[in-house]
Amino acid sequence: VSTPQMQTVTLIPGDGIGPEISTAVMKIFEAAKAPIRWEERNVTAIKGPGGKWMIPPDAKESMDRSKIGLKGPLKTPIAAGHPSMNLLLRKTFDLYANVRPCISIEGYKTPYTDVNLVTIRENTEGEYSGIEHVIVDGVVQSIKLITEEASRRIAEYAFEYARNNQRNSVTAVHKANIMRMSDGLFLRKCREVAENYKDIKFTEMYLDTVCLNMVQDPTQFDVLVMPNLYGDILSDLCAGLIGGLGVTPSGNIGANGVAIFESVHGTAPDIAGLDMANPTALLLSAVMMLRHMGLHDHAHKIQMACFDTIRDKKVLTKDLGGNSKCSEFTAEICRRVQDLE
Amino acid sequence: VSTPQMQTVTLIPGDGIGPEISTAVMKIFEAAKAPIRWEERNVTAIKGPGGKWMIPPDAKESMDRSKIGLKGPLKTPIAAGHPSMNLLLRKTFDLYANVRPCISIEGYKTPYTDVNLVTIRENTEGEYSGIEHVIVDGVVQSIKLITEEASRRIAEYAFEYARNNQRNSVTAVHKANIMRMSDGLFLRKCREVAENYKDIKFTEMYLDTVCLNMVQDPTQFDVLVMPNLYGDILSDLCAGLIGGLGVTPSGNIGANGVAIFESVHGTAPDIAGLDMANPTALLLSAVMMLRHMGLHDHAHKIQMACFDTIRDKKVLTKDLGGNSKCSEFTAEICRRVQDLE
Ligand SMILES: CC(C)[C@H](C(=O)O)[C@@H](O)C(=O)O
Ligand SMILES: CC(C)[C@H](C(=O)O)[C@@H](O)C(=O)O
Repeated sequence: VSTPQMQTVTLIPGDGIGPEISTAVMKIFEAAKAPIRWEERNVTAIKGPGGKWMIPPDAKESMDRSKIGLKGPLKTPIAAGHPSMNLLLRKTFDLYANVRPCISIEGYKTPYTDVNLVTIRENTEGEYSGIEHVIVDGVVQSIKLITEEASRRIAEYAFEYARNNQRNSVTAVHKANIMRMSDGLFLRKCREVAENYKDIKFTEMYLDTVCLNMVQDPTQFDVLVMPNLYGDILSDLCAGLIGGLGVTPSGNIGANGVAIFESVHGTAPDIAGLDMANPTALLLSAVMMLRHMGLHDHAHKIQMACFDTIRDKKVLTKDLGGNSKCSEFTAEICRRVQDLE
Repeated sequence: VSTPQMQTVTLIPGDGIGPEISTAVMKIFEAAKAPIRWEERNVTAIKGPGGKWMIPPDAKESMDRSKIGLKGPLKTPIAAGHPSMNLLLRKTFDLYANVRPCISIEGYKTPYTDVNLVTIRENTEGEYSGIEHVIVDGVVQSIKLITEEASRRIAEYAFEYARNNQRNSVTAVHKANIMRMSDGLFLRKCREVAENYKDIKFTEMYLDTVCLNMVQDPTQFDVLVMPNLYGDILSDLCAGLIGGLGVTPSGNIGANGVAIFESVHGTAPDIAGLDMANPTALLLSAVMMLRHMGLHDHAHKIQMACFDTIRDKKVLTKDLGGNSKCSEFTAEICRRVQDLE
């Protein structure tokens, strides 16, 4: 057996429970002998030349080299005008696709079973353009920006994703009956790209109809692609179907392999440092990362150990319905990973 | 016992199954001796002077007199530039509040029980402003318009609704972390109005968080108030929780008592004329209408007869899980209404 080459990953542990769950992931990766070298970086927004918010140079430099990041939760600063760190990271590295597989976890009871879908959200424009004006006193407008380029790029990503992940259909989610020009453009690009993927079924659906159908029968959906805000909403809705942000992985993908994988739950300051946090979302995000890096065997092993632990119900953190500590849950996954060797 | 005064209601039967379910409602109202005189009007958009789309003068004139409408589903015309009839009606009569009570129906199984909430959607502006531009080739913007006046008006409506309907809390749904100015203005107005309703608890929540919490535990919500698009989404999502658009009533409320109540499902052309349609959504919308008109006893009786019929499971239309015809389901409700006399 050849020893695989070590690859560097920039680790942004984050705030609150971030460091604990990052430690958990590192331990499990070690047990799985994943060929990853972690390069830890703190990320707090700083003011660069000209007063522009930016991420610290050493974090930027590490990401530029490694191209791959794993990130825990970051607290949103309260300072006026301070950007969300999550948005700043997406912007800095042009991470244009937010990908969230929502797959029911056996043994973790929710009102739904057999959910198995992926939301793919355009991450760079739309309602998140940041352009707003006061027209006259008491009248405000926000601008939603849709471009041909970003729409084609995300549509292509969605179809490539479907093809590479043995998925059968892509649904474009829109409100082109209302926003005829902007969502119309988005939809047109999806239709055009669909022409090049005759192996993947393409459908279109209004966002409101998707939401209604989603809570009635989520099993009808496969890959969904949509503009920024709709993705913000639907990805959280779908996370709710399978148990919430504590168990839902997420990846932000850019060009040329650049990507940051992250848990999208909060920093949970109330339990930070108490060895009570649930590392599942970050761990499953790290599993997505391994797949992205082509390390499928390690990904498979870790995911299996995690799901087995949850299905088994013996060693679970509090939020998962158990009474074990984060470190015990982590140790149990490590044990199972090693058993799989 | 004094005979209550007859009041006129403009009835817009609509397309597809619209006429059948309208007939069903009229029969049940007759059985309940509801003091309503129906004035039937067709509504198809016509081109007025200057090429502006408008609703037919005789429908407009009837509504102007009666102030109250009941409306079945209208098909969306395919003609380019043709407006949605639903939107045109909301606009013509300045129906600024869309109200949808979502209450679990006993005996009609869904993944959720004990849902009991009301979505209140701003119906006149926001993302539905209709203002869009091509900036340069391949770059489009849509404008979301938020005004102080419309925001205050809908917030006041929500708090009044809560107070008059024995509800305890109002949640403002927003993305003011992203659309700081527009959603920020909306949120500010909600906060200001909340000051005048100390008897009602006020909370604020991000739209994505609402969606996630909604599918995890809808019982935590009571009255929700939000801008136009968010309401479009959430009202459909919530309808899904209790069984879909076939059982969810809806009202569009304007100033000075003007209102149109409507079923928001489609025209179901495939089963039109086959005596298979489910009149529940239109009937429950008509019940909302009766309450709006102060006819609480009639409203109560009809609602009870409808819910009893569903709970009893013996005479149900196909979509409700039975194999009875629309006319049989209607007759059963009529029978129960008369028993309640
Ligand atoms: C933190 C916040 C700015 C962000 C968003 O609105 O996109 C979050 O909700 C997400 O989905 O990543
Ligand atoms: C028919 C359509 C224009 C409408 C909307 O988007 O508002 C519908 O979805 C609704 O909720 O009434």
